[in-house]
Amino acid sequence: MKCRVCGKPANINLRSYKTALCEEDFIAFLEKRVSATIGKYRLIDEADRPIVAVSGGKDSLSLWYMMNKLGYVSDGIYIDLGIEGYSERSLEKVRQMADTLRRRVYVFHVRNALQKGIDGVARVIRRPTCSACGTIKRYIMNRVCIDKGYTVLATGHNLDDEASALFGNVLYWKREYLWKKNVVLEGRGEHLVKKIKPFFLCSEREIAAYAIMKGIDYIYEECPYSEGAKTLVYKEMLNRIEESSPGTKIMFVKGYLKMLKEKGDEKEDGRESRYCLRCGYPTFSDKCSFCWLLDKFGTEYDVEFDQYN
Amino acid sequence: MKCRVCGKPANINLRSYKTALCEEDFIAFLEKRVSATIGKYRLIDEADRPIVAVSGGKDSLSLWYMMNKLGYVSDGIYIDLGIEGYSERSLEKVRQMADTLRRRVYVFHVRNALQKGIDGVARVIRRPTCSACGTIKRYIMNRVCIDKGYTVLATGHNLDDEASALFGNVLYWKREYLWKKNVVLEGRGEHLVKKIKPFFLCSEREIAAYAIMKGIDYIYEECPYSEGAKTLVYKEMLNRIEESSPGTKIMFVKGYLKMLKEKGDEKEDGRESRYCLRCGYPTFSDKCSFCWLLDKFGTEYDVEFDQYN
Repeated sequence: MKCRVCGKPANINLRSYKTALCEEDFIAFLEKRVSATIGKYRLIDEADRPIVAVSGGKDSLSLWYMMNKLGYVSDGIYIDLGIEGYSERSLEKVRQMADTLRRRVYVFHVRNALQKGIDGVARVIRRPTCSACGTIKRYIMNRVCIDKGYTVLATGHNLDDEASALFGNVLYWKREYLWKKNVVLEGRGEHLVKKIKPFFLCSEREIAAYAIMKGIDYIYEECPYSEGAKTLVYKEMLNRIEESSPGTKIMFVKGYLKMLKEKGDEKEDGRESRYCLRCGYPTFSDKCSFCWLLDKFGTEYDVEFDQYN
Repeated sequence: MKCRVCGKPANINLRSYKTALCEEDFIAFLEKRVSATIGKYRLIDEADRPIVAVSGGKDSLSLWYMMNKLGYVSDGIYIDLGIEGYSERSLEKVRQMADTLRRRVYVFHVRNALQKGIDGVARVIRRPTCSACGTIKRYIMNRVCIDKGYTVLATGHNLDDEASALFGNVLYWKREYLWKKNVVLEGRGEHLVKKIKPFFLCSEREIAAYAIMKGIDYIYEECPYSEGAKTLVYKEMLNRIEESSPGTKIMFVKGYLKMLKEKGDEKEDGRESRYCLRCGYPTFSDKCSFCWLLDKFGTEYDVEFDQYN
């Protein structure tokens, strides 16, 4: 196999693009796609101050690295879930990257706020661990932007994440979620920051290849709570279809985006916009789920961030 | 495992219904579901004369058998595709069932009409075999109803068929097909007969069990042209999801039906209804695809049916 661009031996075969590329040309190819995604979907304006949600995994660290390389100067936000060993090892990777990029990273420690790790928090509020984690992450990532003046939050969600989540939403026709996914989710004034997914059209495999080629040191372990997650089953299945029909995942996600665009405003759910009386976060009642959580713990704690660099 | 109804040893475990049943109670359970489907979706009126499209496989023969057993007296229509060996063996199973039920079956021989089997026909018109087969089947099944006075055409499509086809339509967002599937497709005057799928909510496994318990002698071979069909890949995958989350297939299909109902008339494609100038079959041009096919073969042939019983 030879590189389609320069003719040197190819390092990666991209069947869905019917091409094969050497390391150098693959890196250029992927960066160009991300750049085009940012441009086409207007993810970042010139006046924006973006921040990247980093977990220590390949997707978020590659995104943080690539955004800075592409000229979108960005800091990072890391949430330490207090999972023994795993959280420390992840934070270490994040710190390394912060040093490489010479960018700041904010760190929120769940254990400082609630005196428990995420599993303990979940037990107290009687929710699945991933549900408690989602509530805290969504809140804190938004909060760091509001508190520290960032205007765009970028997450490392990739094509496989989006396709498998979309797949689950279609399989059970979860209409409250089905038309809510997008490359960009607009913010709401002082309450909610704009969220973007620059890797929306990049597969997990492509990002892993990019991370390896760029020598990005990321944490290989999956989150110990992700085991048995349905999305992993969906990912595997979509990859099997991809194997026999290359390009299916990207067609699935792009086809969805096209339908979404045509649907336009129809996707509004008609519920009134309300904001938490305590902190201003969007909610459907008087109190947002994070403040509700703080109450459950009887804590007067106000959100604080550690700062690295 | 004991039968949930009578306590005798169970013959089949239905995880999606969280139940296990003995042979007798399973048969009653499945027949009741089909009966309820026919009632709920108004598939058959008292004044109707139904006919069943039979292939010799487990689904269509079980449907033909069950409909007659449930009091919906029905004849059959078999299309002999001229696939050497396979077509003869299939017809033999159909004849056996016709004798058991003492009902008539009409037989249309592709080879009599076009002097070729379905593979030869496909080659002449440069279409995939399954595409040529679909064109002929849809036309002939409708035609037998128009010519012989049947008012409803029942096909043996089961839950797995519908879920996998729906899955393919969603995966590629085939909007021209996506909202066209239903338990019942209404007819159009003298041109198009009403089509129904009484097994829409019965899984392949349930129907196979029914056929075996009832001693229905069907053809086990798959159509030789079905190999490698994408729907088989989708079926296998949906069954894997079903394995880990019993009930998924039926939720997927029922959720779809619910959305479809709410969409209502929105699904019209806006194209004007037109009919073939030669035979009256619905078409979007002057000539339907079957008459176009006859022209390709330069034949003046008019559709004829053999009759058995």
